[in-house]
Amino acid sequence: MNIVLLDPRQTESELWSISAKRQIEHLTTHVDIQVGDTLKVGIREGKRYLTEIVSIDETCVQLKPLQQEIVPAKHPVTLIVAMPRPKVLRRLIMDAVTLGVEKIILLHSCRVDKSYWQTPFLQQVDQYVTLGLEQAGDTIAPKIELYKRFKPFVEDILSGLITADCPAFVAHPYAEQPMPYALQHPCTIVIGPEGGFIPYEVDLLIKNGCQAVSLGNRILRTETAISYVLGRLFSAS
Amino acid sequence: MNIVLLDPRQTESELWSISAKRQIEHLTTHVDIQVGDTLKVGIREGKRYLTEIVSIDETCVQLKPLQQEIVPAKHPVTLIVAMPRPKVLRRLIMDAVTLGVEKIILLHSCRVDKSYWQTPFLQQVDQYVTLGLEQAGDTIAPKIELYKRFKPFVEDILSGLITADCPAFVAHPYAEQPMPYALQHPCTIVIGPEGGFIPYEVDLLIKNGCQAVSLGNRILRTETAISYVLGRLFSAS
Repeated sequence: MNIVLLDPRQTESELWSISAKRQIEHLTTHVDIQVGDTLKVGIREGKRYLTEIVSIDETCVQLKPLQQEIVPAKHPVTLIVAMPRPKVLRRLIMDAVTLGVEKIILLHSCRVDKSYWQTPFLQQVDQYVTLGLEQAGDTIAPKIELYKRFKPFVEDILSGLITADCPAFVAHPYAEQPMPYALQHPCTIVIGPEGGFIPYEVDLLIKNGCQAVSLGNRILRTETAISYVLGRLFSAS
Repeated sequence: MNIVLLDPRQTESELWSISAKRQIEHLTTHVDIQVGDTLKVGIREGKRYLTEIVSIDETCVQLKPLQQEIVPAKHPVTLIVAMPRPKVLRRLIMDAVTLGVEKIILLHSCRVDKSYWQTPFLQQVDQYVTLGLEQAGDTIAPKIELYKRFKPFVEDILSGLITADCPAFVAHPYAEQPMPYALQHPCTIVIGPEGGFIPYEVDLLIKNGCQAVSLGNRILRTETAISYVLGRLFSAS
Protein backbone atom coordinates (compact mmCIF):
# COMPACT_ATOMS: atom_id res chain seq x y z
CA MET A 1 0.00 0.00 0.00
CA ASN A 2 1.87 3.07 -1.23
CA ILE A 3 -1.10 5.42 -0.93
CA VAL A 4 -4.33 5.18 1.04
CA LEU A 5 -7.38 5.49 -1.20
CA LEU A 6 -10.29 7.44 0.27
CA ASP A 7 -13.82 8.01 -0.95
CA PRO A 8 -14.52 11.68 -1.74
CA ARG A 9 -16.96 11.88 1.19
CA GLN A 10 -14.12 11.03 3.60
CA THR A 11 -12.39 14.24 2.50
CA GLU A 12 -15.26 16.71 2.78
CA SER A 13 -14.39 18.13 6.22
CA GLU A 14 -11.29 20.13 7.01
CA LEU A 15 -9.74 17.01 8.55
CA TRP A 16 -9.96 13.89 6.43
CA SER A 17 -10.57 10.46 7.94
CA ILE A 18 -9.51 6.88 7.27
CA SER A 19 -12.11 4.53 8.70
CA ALA A 20 -11.69 1.25 6.76
CA LYS A 21 -10.49 -1.50 9.06
CA ARG A 22 -8.15 -2.95 6.40
CA GLN A 23 -6.39 0.37 5.90
CA ILE A 24 -6.10 1.20 9.61
CA GLU A 25 -4.73 -2.27 10.37
CA HIS A 26 -2.14 -1.98 7.61
CA LEU A 27 -1.04 1.48 8.74
CA THR A 28 -0.77 0.62 12.43
CA THR A 29 0.70 -2.89 12.01
CA HIS A 30 2.95 -2.69 8.95
CA VAL A 31 3.76 1.00 8.60
CA ASP A 32 3.63 1.81 12.33
CA ILE A 33 2.30 5.32 11.73
CA GLN A 34 2.65 8.04 14.36
CA VAL A 35 0.92 11.38 14.81
CA GLY A 36 2.90 13.96 12.86
CA ASP A 37 4.02 11.52 10.13
CA THR A 38 3.22 12.34 6.53
CA LEU A 39 1.01 9.97 4.56
CA LYS A 40 0.24 9.77 0.84
CA VAL A 41 -3.49 9.73 0.17
CA GLY A 42 -5.50 9.44 -3.03
CA ILE A 43 -9.12 10.41 -3.55
CA ARG A 44 -10.93 7.82 -5.67
CA GLU A 45 -11.25 9.05 -9.25
CA GLY A 46 -9.62 12.29 -8.10
CA LYS A 47 -6.43 13.90 -6.93
CA ARG A 48 -3.56 12.73 -4.76
CA TYR A 49 -2.19 14.51 -1.70
CA LEU A 50 0.55 14.43 0.84
CA THR A 51 -1.15 14.64 4.25
CA GLU A 52 -0.10 14.81 7.87
CA ILE A 53 -1.47 12.44 10.48
CA VAL A 54 -3.34 14.39 13.15
CA SER A 55 -4.82 11.62 15.30
CA ILE A 56 -4.88 7.83 15.44
CA ASP A 57 -7.31 5.54 17.18
CA GLU A 58 -8.61 2.03 16.48
CA THR A 59 -11.51 3.13 14.33
CA CYS A 60 -10.28 6.35 12.76
CA VAL A 61 -7.10 8.02 11.55
CA GLN A 62 -7.46 11.77 10.95
CA LEU A 63 -5.42 13.63 8.37
CA LYS A 64 -4.66 17.20 7.36
CA PRO A 65 -3.93 17.68 3.62
CA LEU A 66 -0.56 19.39 3.02
CA GLN A 67 0.00 19.54 -0.73
CA GLN A 68 -1.19 18.05 -3.99
CA GLU A 69 0.88 15.33 -5.70
CA ILE A 70 0.93 14.00 -9.25
CA VAL A 71 -1.31 11.03 -10.11
CA PRO A 72 0.74 8.73 -12.37
CA ALA A 73 -0.45 8.63 -15.99
CA LYS A 74 -1.87 5.42 -17.39
CA HIS A 75 -0.53 3.54 -20.41
CA PRO A 76 -2.91 4.01 -23.37
CA VAL A 77 -3.60 0.29 -23.66
CA THR A 78 -6.59 -2.00 -23.62
CA LEU A 79 -5.65 -5.41 -22.23
CA ILE A 80 -7.84 -8.27 -23.42
CA VAL A 81 -7.06 -11.45 -21.55
CA ALA A 82 -8.68 -14.87 -21.50
CA MET A 83 -10.47 -15.38 -18.18
CA PRO A 84 -7.80 -16.87 -15.86
CA ARG A 85 -8.12 -19.50 -13.15
CA PRO A 86 -9.78 -17.99 -10.07
CA LYS A 87 -6.52 -18.28 -8.12
CA VAL A 88 -4.76 -16.14 -10.72
CA LEU A 89 -7.55 -13.58 -11.18
CA ARG A 90 -6.66 -11.48 -8.13
CA ARG A 91 -2.97 -11.16 -9.00
CA LEU A 92 -3.73 -10.53 -12.66
CA ILE A 93 -6.18 -7.70 -11.99
CA MET A 94 -3.94 -6.18 -9.30
CA ASP A 95 -0.89 -6.27 -11.58
CA ALA A 96 -2.70 -4.86 -14.62
CA VAL A 97 -4.05 -2.02 -12.47
CA THR A 98 -0.65 -1.37 -10.87
CA LEU A 99 1.01 -1.28 -14.27
CA GLY A 100 -1.44 1.40 -15.43
CA VAL A 101 -3.62 -0.41 -17.96
CA GLU A 102 -6.48 1.87 -19.04
CA LYS A 103 -9.05 -0.82 -19.77
CA ILE A 104 -9.15 -4.54 -18.93
CA ILE A 105 -11.38 -6.98 -20.77
CA LEU A 106 -11.84 -10.55 -19.49
CA LEU A 107 -12.85 -12.81 -22.36
CA HIS A 108 -14.03 -16.38 -22.71
CA SER A 109 -12.02 -18.73 -24.92
CA CYS A 110 -12.16 -22.41 -25.81
CA ARG A 111 -9.47 -23.36 -23.25
CA VAL A 112 -11.12 -21.38 -20.43
CA ASP A 113 -13.03 -23.69 -18.09
CA LYS A 114 -16.64 -22.48 -17.96
CA SER A 115 -16.61 -22.81 -14.16
CA TYR A 116 -14.16 -19.88 -13.97
CA TRP A 117 -17.07 -17.52 -14.68
CA GLN A 118 -18.86 -18.75 -11.55
CA THR A 119 -16.04 -17.94 -9.14
CA PRO A 120 -16.97 -15.75 -6.16
CA PHE A 121 -13.65 -13.94 -6.77
CA LEU A 122 -15.36 -12.13 -9.66
CA GLN A 123 -17.47 -10.31 -7.04
CA GLN A 124 -14.26 -9.01 -5.50
CA VAL A 125 -12.77 -7.42 -8.58
CA ASP A 126 -13.34 -3.94 -7.15
CA GLN A 127 -11.22 -4.85 -4.14
CA TYR A 128 -8.41 -6.12 -6.39
CA VAL A 129 -8.59 -2.84 -8.30
CA THR A 130 -8.28 -0.90 -5.03
CA LEU A 131 -5.24 -2.97 -4.02
CA GLY A 132 -3.63 -2.36 -7.43
CA LEU A 133 -4.25 1.38 -7.25
CA GLU A 134 -2.90 1.58 -3.68
CA GLN A 135 0.22 -0.32 -4.78
CA ALA A 136 0.85 1.93 -7.79
CA GLY A 137 -0.04 5.21 -6.11
CA ASP A 138 -2.87 5.74 -8.62
CA THR A 139 -6.43 6.95 -7.97
CA ILE A 140 -8.27 6.23 -11.23
CA ALA A 141 -9.78 2.76 -11.65
CA PRO A 142 -9.47 1.26 -15.13
CA LYS A 143 -12.61 0.20 -16.96
CA ILE A 144 -13.24 -3.53 -16.62
CA GLU A 145 -15.55 -5.45 -18.95
CA LEU A 146 -16.46 -9.14 -19.18
CA TYR A 147 -17.42 -10.97 -22.37
CA LYS A 148 -18.53 -14.58 -22.11
CA ARG A 149 -18.84 -15.19 -25.85
CA PHE A 150 -15.65 -15.11 -27.91
CA LYS A 151 -16.96 -14.81 -31.48
CA PRO A 152 -19.47 -11.97 -31.01
CA PHE A 153 -16.90 -10.06 -28.95
CA VAL A 154 -14.20 -10.36 -31.60
CA GLU A 155 -16.49 -9.62 -34.54
CA ASP A 156 -18.65 -6.87 -33.03
CA ILE A 157 -16.54 -5.20 -30.32
CA LEU A 158 -12.85 -5.83 -30.89
CA SER A 159 -12.92 -5.07 -34.60
CA GLY A 160 -14.34 -1.63 -33.69
CA LEU A 161 -11.46 -0.88 -31.29
CA ILE A 162 -8.79 -1.33 -33.96
CA THR A 163 -7.69 1.64 -36.06
CA ALA A 164 -4.50 2.59 -37.90
CA ASP A 165 -3.49 4.65 -34.84
CA CYS A 166 -4.48 1.96 -32.37
CA PRO A 167 -3.45 -1.50 -33.57
CA ALA A 168 -4.18 -4.75 -31.74
CA PHE A 169 -1.57 -7.43 -31.12
CA VAL A 170 -2.28 -11.01 -30.16
CA ALA A 171 0.63 -12.81 -28.50
CA HIS A 172 1.05 -16.04 -30.44
CA PRO A 173 4.03 -18.40 -30.10
CA TYR A 174 4.13 -19.32 -33.78
CA ALA A 175 3.94 -15.80 -35.20
CA GLU A 176 6.95 -14.67 -37.22
CA GLN A 177 6.64 -10.94 -36.54
CA PRO A 178 8.02 -10.03 -33.09
CA MET A 179 5.93 -8.04 -30.59
CA PRO A 180 6.81 -4.37 -31.22
CA TYR A 181 8.47 -2.21 -28.59
CA ALA A 182 8.77 1.44 -27.60
CA LEU A 183 5.34 2.29 -29.07
CA GLN A 184 4.41 5.97 -29.18
CA HIS A 185 0.67 5.42 -29.67
CA PRO A 186 -2.23 3.54 -28.04
CA CYS A 187 -2.78 -0.14 -28.68
CA THR A 188 -4.75 -3.20 -27.67
CA ILE A 189 -3.06 -6.41 -26.58
CA VAL A 190 -4.69 -9.83 -26.51
CA ILE A 191 -3.32 -12.56 -24.25
CA GLY A 192 -4.62 -16.13 -24.46
CA PRO A 193 -5.41 -18.66 -21.74
CA GLU A 194 -3.07 -21.34 -20.37
CA GLY A 195 -2.48 -23.62 -23.34
CA GLY A 196 -3.08 -20.70 -25.72
CA PHE A 197 -5.90 -19.78 -28.07
CA ILE A 198 -7.02 -22.57 -30.41
CA PRO A 199 -6.18 -22.07 -34.12
CA TYR A 200 -9.80 -21.10 -34.92
CA GLU A 201 -9.60 -18.30 -32.35
CA VAL A 202 -6.26 -16.99 -33.61
CA ASP A 203 -7.63 -17.03 -37.17
CA LEU A 204 -10.75 -15.12 -36.09
CA LEU A 205 -8.64 -12.54 -34.26
CA ILE A 206 -6.44 -12.03 -37.33
CA LYS A 207 -9.46 -11.90 -39.68
CA ASN A 208 -10.86 -9.12 -37.49
CA GLY A 209 -7.76 -6.97 -37.61
CA CYS A 210 -5.35 -8.27 -34.95
CA GLN A 211 -1.68 -8.74 -35.75
CA ALA A 212 -0.23 -12.03 -34.46
CA VAL A 213 3.13 -11.32 -32.85
CA SER A 214 5.67 -13.49 -31.06
CA LEU A 215 7.21 -12.97 -27.63
CA GLY A 216 10.11 -15.30 -28.39
CA ASN A 217 10.35 -19.01 -27.76
CA ARG A 218 9.87 -18.98 -23.99
CA ILE A 219 6.32 -19.72 -22.86
CA LEU A 220 5.33 -17.34 -20.08
CA ARG A 221 2.52 -17.62 -17.58
CA THR A 222 -0.32 -15.17 -18.29
CA GLU A 223 0.51 -12.85 -15.37
CA THR A 224 4.20 -12.82 -16.23
CA ALA A 225 3.44 -12.17 -19.90
CA ILE A 226 1.31 -9.11 -19.08
CA SER A 227 4.02 -7.19 -17.24
CA TYR A 228 6.68 -8.40 -19.70
CA VAL A 229 4.64 -7.16 -22.68
CA LEU A 230 3.82 -3.82 -21.04
CA GLY A 231 7.49 -3.27 -20.18
CA ARG A 232 8.32 -3.93 -23.80
CA LEU A 233 5.52 -1.97 -25.50
CA PHE A 234 5.95 1.18 -23.42
CA SER A 235 9.71 1.01 -22.97
CA ALA A 236 10.18 4.49 -24.41
CA SER A 237 7.86 6.14 -21.90
CA MET B 1 4.43 -27.56 -17.76
CA ASN B 2 5.36 -27.02 -21.40
CA ILE B 3 8.14 -29.58 -21.43
CA VAL B 4 8.89 -32.51 -19.14
CA LEU B 5 12.38 -32.27 -17.65
CA LEU B 6 14.23 -35.58 -17.29
CA ASP B 7 17.53 -36.46 -15.65
CA PRO B 8 20.11 -37.69 -18.16
CA ARG B 9 19.97 -41.19 -16.64
CA GLN B 10 16.27 -41.45 -17.56
CA THR B 11 17.30 -41.13 -21.21
CA GLU B 12 20.09 -43.71 -21.35
CA SER B 13 18.04 -46.60 -22.81
CA GLU B 14 16.46 -46.68 -26.25
CA LEU B 15 13.11 -45.86 -24.65
CA TRP B 16 13.14 -42.95 -22.19
CA SER B 17 11.05 -43.00 -19.02
CA ILE B 18 9.16 -40.50 -16.89
CA SER B 19 8.89 -41.81 -13.35
CA ALA B 20 8.34 -38.72 -11.16
CA LYS B 21 4.90 -38.81 -9.56
CA ARG B 22 4.38 -35.05 -10.04
CA GLN B 23 5.05 -35.25 -13.77
CA ILE B 24 2.96 -38.39 -14.37
CA GLU B 25 0.02 -36.92 -12.44
CA HIS B 26 0.19 -33.69 -14.42
CA LEU B 27 0.36 -35.52 -17.75
CA THR B 28 -2.48 -37.93 -17.01
CA THR B 29 -4.76 -35.47 -15.17
CA HIS B 30 -4.24 -32.11 -16.89
CA VAL B 31 -2.88 -33.02 -20.33
CA ASP B 32 -4.75 -36.34 -20.65
CA ILE B 33 -1.91 -37.95 -22.62
CA GLN B 34 -2.54 -41.00 -24.80
CA VAL B 35 -0.17 -43.55 -26.35
CA GLY B 36 0.90 -42.19 -29.74
CA ASP B 37 0.77 -38.51 -28.66
CA THR B 38 3.88 -36.41 -29.04
CA LEU B 39 5.45 -34.86 -25.94
CA LYS B 40 8.14 -32.20 -25.54
CA VAL B 41 10.96 -33.36 -23.28
CA GLY B 42 14.11 -31.65 -22.02
CA ILE B 43 17.18 -33.28 -20.59
CA ARG B 44 18.49 -31.36 -17.57
CA GLU B 45 21.45 -29.21 -18.57
CA GLY B 46 21.17 -30.73 -22.04
CA LYS B 47 19.12 -30.88 -25.21
CA ARG B 48 15.40 -30.77 -25.92
CA TYR B 49 13.43 -33.30 -27.95
CA LEU B 50 10.07 -34.03 -29.42
CA THR B 51 9.14 -37.55 -28.32
CA GLU B 52 6.31 -40.03 -28.87
CA ILE B 53 4.50 -41.68 -25.99
CA VAL B 54 4.94 -45.46 -26.21
CA SER B 55 3.32 -46.66 -22.98
CA ILE B 56 1.54 -45.21 -19.96
CA ASP B 57 1.02 -46.70 -16.54
CA GLU B 58 0.70 -45.28 -13.03
CA THR B 59 4.41 -45.36 -12.26
CA CYS B 60 6.02 -44.93 -15.65
CA VAL B 61 5.48 -43.23 -19.00
CA GLN B 62 7.76 -44.50 -21.76
CA LEU B 63 8.89 -42.32 -24.65
CA LYS B 64 10.64 -42.68 -27.98
CA PRO B 65 12.70 -39.61 -29.04
CA LEU B 66 11.67 -38.32 -32.49
CA GLN B 67 13.70 -35.19 -33.18
CA GLN B 68 15.79 -32.56 -31.49
CA GLU B 69 14.30 -29.12 -30.74
CA ILE B 70 15.85 -25.76 -29.94
CA VAL B 71 16.48 -24.84 -26.29
CA PRO B 72 15.51 -21.15 -25.89
CA ALA B 73 18.44 -18.80 -25.32
CA LYS B 74 18.78 -16.99 -22.00
CA HIS B 75 18.92 -13.23 -21.53
CA PRO B 76 22.47 -12.16 -20.61
CA VAL B 77 21.40 -10.71 -17.30
CA THR B 78 22.26 -11.12 -13.64
CA LEU B 79 19.26 -10.36 -11.46
CA ILE B 80 20.10 -9.21 -7.95
CA VAL B 81 17.01 -9.02 -5.81
CA ALA B 82 16.47 -8.35 -2.13
CA MET B 83 15.34 -11.55 -0.41
CA PRO B 84 11.54 -11.53 -0.74
CA ARG B 85 8.88 -12.69 1.70
CA PRO B 86 8.73 -16.50 1.75
CA LYS B 87 5.29 -16.45 0.08
CA VAL B 88 6.73 -14.50 -2.84
CA LEU B 89 9.98 -16.48 -3.18
CA ARG B 90 8.48 -19.36 -5.17
CA ARG B 91 6.82 -17.13 -7.74
CA LEU B 92 9.82 -14.85 -8.01
CA ILE B 93 12.28 -17.69 -8.69
CA MET B 94 9.86 -19.42 -11.10
CA ASP B 95 9.27 -16.22 -13.04
CA ALA B 96 12.94 -15.24 -13.22
CA VAL B 97 13.78 -18.72 -14.50
CA THR B 98 10.90 -18.72 -17.00
CA LEU B 99 11.97 -15.32 -18.30
CA GLY B 100 15.47 -16.66 -18.98
CA VAL B 101 17.60 -14.89 -16.38
CA GLU B 102 21.14 -16.31 -16.47
CA LYS B 103 22.03 -15.76 -12.83
CA ILE B 104 19.89 -14.92 -9.80
CA ILE B 105 21.34 -13.45 -6.61
CA LEU B 106 19.23 -13.18 -3.44
CA LEU B 107 20.62 -10.42 -1.23
CA HIS B 108 19.99 -9.18 2.27
CA SER B 109 18.97 -5.57 2.76
CA CYS B 110 17.92 -3.38 5.67
CA ARG B 111 14.20 -3.76 4.94
CA VAL B 112 14.42 -7.57 4.56
CA ASP B 113 13.16 -9.29 7.70
CA LYS B 114 15.96 -11.55 8.99
CA SER B 115 13.45 -14.38 9.45
CA TYR B 116 13.09 -14.64 5.65
CA TRP B 117 16.47 -16.38 5.55
CA GLN B 118 15.15 -19.14 7.81
CA THR B 119 12.20 -20.09 5.61
CA PRO B 120 11.98 -23.78 4.65
CA PHE B 121 11.03 -22.56 1.15
CA LEU B 122 14.74 -21.82 0.59
CA GLN B 123 15.31 -25.60 0.64
CA GLN B 124 12.88 -25.90 -2.27
CA VAL B 125 14.53 -23.47 -4.64
CA ASP B 126 15.62 -26.32 -6.93
CA GLN B 127 11.96 -27.34 -7.32
CA TYR B 128 10.98 -23.77 -8.21
CA VAL B 129 13.76 -23.71 -10.79
CA THR B 130 12.43 -26.96 -12.29
CA LEU B 131 8.91 -25.52 -12.49
CA GLY B 132 10.24 -22.36 -14.15
CA LEU B 133 12.24 -24.36 -16.72
CA GLU B 134 9.26 -26.63 -17.47
CA GLN B 135 7.06 -23.55 -17.97
CA ALA B 136 9.53 -21.85 -20.32
CA GLY B 137 10.57 -24.95 -22.25
CA ASP B 138 14.16 -24.49 -21.08
CA THR B 139 16.62 -27.12 -19.79
CA ILE B 140 19.49 -25.09 -18.31
CA ALA B 141 19.14 -23.99 -14.68
CA PRO B 142 20.40 -20.48 -13.90
CA LYS B 143 23.06 -20.02 -11.26
CA ILE B 144 21.55 -19.00 -7.92
CA GLU B 145 23.61 -17.41 -5.14
CA LEU B 146 22.65 -16.10 -1.69
CA TYR B 147 24.40 -13.27 0.14
CA LYS B 148 23.32 -12.48 3.67
CA ARG B 149 25.54 -9.41 4.08
CA PHE B 150 24.80 -6.38 1.94
CA LYS B 151 27.98 -4.30 2.27
CA PRO B 152 30.60 -7.00 1.61
CA PHE B 153 28.55 -8.24 -1.32
CA VAL B 154 28.30 -4.80 -2.92
CA GLU B 155 31.92 -3.86 -2.28
CA ASP B 156 33.64 -7.16 -3.02
CA ILE B 157 31.37 -9.04 -5.45
CA LEU B 158 29.04 -6.66 -7.26
CA SER B 159 31.71 -4.10 -8.06
CA GLY B 160 33.63 -6.90 -9.84
CA LEU B 161 30.62 -7.80 -12.03
CA ILE B 162 30.34 -4.29 -13.49
CA THR B 163 32.28 -3.38 -16.64
CA ALA B 164 31.79 -0.88 -19.47
CA ASP B 165 30.18 -3.69 -21.50
CA CYS B 166 28.09 -4.95 -18.62
CA PRO B 167 26.59 -2.07 -16.62
CA ALA B 168 24.47 -2.49 -13.50
CA PHE B 169 21.17 -0.68 -12.95
CA VAL B 170 19.43 -0.26 -9.65
CA ALA B 171 15.71 0.52 -9.91
CA HIS B 172 15.17 3.60 -7.77
CA PRO B 173 11.96 5.67 -7.73
CA TYR B 174 13.73 9.00 -7.30
CA ALA B 175 16.34 8.54 -10.05
CA GLU B 176 16.16 11.01 -12.92
CA GLN B 177 17.63 8.78 -15.62
CA PRO B 178 15.03 6.32 -16.94
CA MET B 179 15.77 2.57 -17.05
CA PRO B 180 17.25 1.92 -20.53
CA TYR B 181 15.54 -0.31 -23.08
CA ALA B 182 16.41 -2.47 -26.06
CA LEU B 183 19.89 -3.24 -24.72
CA GLN B 184 22.23 -5.11 -27.02
CA HIS B 185 24.69 -6.19 -24.32
CA PRO B 186 24.70 -7.99 -20.97
CA CYS B 187 23.78 -6.20 -17.78
CA THR B 188 23.03 -6.59 -14.10
CA ILE B 189 19.82 -5.35 -12.54
CA VAL B 190 19.28 -4.72 -8.86
CA ILE B 191 15.76 -4.72 -7.39
CA GLY B 192 15.11 -3.65 -3.81
CA PRO B 193 12.79 -5.07 -1.16
CA GLU B 194 9.21 -3.98 -0.42
CA GLY B 195 9.65 -0.42 0.82
CA GLY B 196 12.83 -0.04 -1.26
CA PHE B 197 16.51 0.14 -0.39
CA ILE B 198 17.39 2.65 2.33
CA PRO B 199 19.37 5.73 1.19
CA TYR B 200 22.63 4.30 2.60
CA GLU B 201 22.19 1.19 0.45
CA VAL B 202 21.40 3.16 -2.71
CA ASP B 203 24.46 5.34 -2.08
CA LEU B 204 26.68 2.29 -1.58
CA LEU B 205 25.36 0.72 -4.79
CA ILE B 206 26.06 3.92 -6.74
CA LYS B 207 29.50 4.34 -5.14
CA ASN B 208 30.33 0.83 -6.33
CA GLY B 209 29.39 1.42 -9.94
CA CYS B 210 25.59 0.97 -10.21
CA GLN B 211 23.50 3.46 -12.14
CA ALA B 212 20.28 4.49 -10.38
CA VAL B 213 17.44 4.44 -12.90
CA SER B 214 13.73 5.10 -12.64
CA LEU B 215 10.86 2.89 -13.79
CA GLY B 216 8.40 5.79 -13.82
CA ASN B 217 6.18 6.95 -11.01
CA ARG B 218 4.19 3.76 -10.48
CA ILE B 219 5.45 1.58 -7.65
CA LEU B 220 5.45 -2.07 -8.73
CA ARG B 221 5.60 -5.19 -6.60
CA THR B 222 8.98 -6.94 -6.83
CA GLU B 223 7.71 -9.83 -8.97
CA THR B 224 5.88 -7.49 -11.33
CA ALA B 225 8.91 -5.23 -11.60
CA ILE B 226 11.17 -8.12 -12.63
CA SER B 227 9.17 -9.14 -15.70
CA TYR B 228 8.42 -5.49 -16.55
CA VAL B 229 12.13 -4.60 -16.44
CA LEU B 230 13.16 -7.66 -18.46
CA GLY B 231 10.52 -6.90 -21.11
CA ARG B 232 11.91 -3.40 -21.32
CA LEU B 233 15.65 -4.16 -21.26
CA PHE B 234 15.53 -6.91 -23.86
CA SER B 235 12.74 -5.50 -26.01
CA ALA B 236 14.90 -5.62 -29.15
CA SER B 237 15.60 -9.35 -28.86
